[in-house]
Amino acid sequence: MSDWQDLINKLRQFNEERDWAQFHNAKDLALALSIEAAELNELFLWKKAEDADSQKVKEELADVFAFALQLADKYNLDVNQIVSDKIARNAEKYPINKAKGSAKKYDEL
Amino acid sequence: MSDWQDLINKLRQFNEERDWAQFHNAKDLALALSIEAAELNELFLWKKAEDADSQKVKEELADVFAFALQLADKYNLDVNQIVSDKIARNAEKYPINKAKGSAKKYDEL
Amino acid sequence: MSDWQDLINKLRQFNEERDWAQFHNAKDLALALSIEAAELNELFLWKKAEDADSQKVKEELADVFAFALQLADKYNLDVNQIVSDKIARNAEKYPINKAKGSAKKYDEL
Amino acid sequence: MSDWQDLINKLRQFNEERDWAQFHNAKDLALALSIEAAELNELFLWKKAEDADSQKVKEELADVFAFALQLADKYNLDVNQIVSDKIARNAEKYPINKAKGSAKKYDEL
Repeated sequence: MSDWQDLINKLRQFNEERDWAQFHNAKDLALALSIEAAELNELFLWKKAEDADSQKVKEELADVFAFALQLADKYNLDVNQIVSDKIARNAEKYPINKAKGSAKKYDEL
Repeated sequence: MSDWQDLINKLRQFNEERDWAQFHNAKDLALALSIEAAELNELFLWKKAEDADSQKVKEELADVFAFALQLADKYNLDVNQIVSDKIARNAEKYPINKAKGSAKKYDEL
Repeated sequence: MSDWQDLINKLRQFNEERDWAQFHNAKDLALALSIEAAELNELFLWKKAEDADSQKVKEELADVFAFALQLADKYNLDVNQIVSDKIARNAEKYPINKAKGSAKKYDEL
Repeated sequence: MSDWQDLINKLRQFNEERDWAQFHNAKDLALALSIEAAELNELFLWKKAEDADSQKVKEELADVFAFALQLADKYNLDVNQIVSDKIARNAEKYPINKAKGSAKKYDEL
């Protein structure tokens, strides 16, 4: 079994035991994901990157992954596949000779 | 090699080829993650969950995973470990007998 | 008439002409607000604060205000009142002698 | 004096008393704004719009306005002007005959 699927199974069991599927529609899962992402960002607020509390980063990042995985599960997506595909598409949008050393968006390159 | 380490390696190579490490401090990676999360949420805006475009959900969710993985890499975190640990801690914060069927936060249970 | 009430009236008329009240429940308005906030943040991504495009900042900030005003209207809130009240409460949470020169949250002061 | 300017003046005084200008670059103000927007959204998570706690909505919305106003101040923007201008531009992007009763984005109309 893939690592992702193992985590998804744990999350499924967690939710089933608590009868939480009723709340977990995709719209609210996406909202929960963005709220966790904001909590992660709060660790960097008014600070330099290196001054964030790494223990708390670990915790908030875990929450982000947990909701992202639940969304992947909801849509029956293979995490390895979708991320690999996206990297391949981004390689086309950001060709090395144009994008090297630049932080511009693809439509400004 | 674990699945997520394989993805992290692909992301590292993508960034190295483009000389992007200079931009990828943890604070901006977290910001990028929350922006991708917002793009994912936009697919559900003014709609019911089931009316979101699933192809676009797949794309935006892949972006979310890509930045979450780059943050995990930045902090040398083992994704399986941190998510499994978080599920275990959440099981304590949301005991089944209290949390079952409830959408309340742990501090309101 | 107060300034913000004038803007709320313009926003109401805009929405009524387009028959958009049907989409504008408070949950989606809040979601729209956070999406606009993310678009504002994207202008600063991978950059120093001073390198953001100020024309675009103006546009995205206007969108943020527009949705914040629509939410205030939805809940019949007086913007001057709620912000003034919040400043007063924050003055208690962040007493000058403790908070001066510190970026800590009130619960860490 | 406009309502907005009165609030901005109160916020300026609050920050000056605490010597917080050093933290309040535009990038972190925008980040703070999106974090407050996420806290507002959390009030609607797993719920219908009408089940959010309206007292808390008032508080979080006040925080959103406070950071939006500080950004407007940072860029010397006239809130009435930028929002009125944006409504006028949106009226062009969403002509009544095309946009009426539709939740589509302008580029899909």
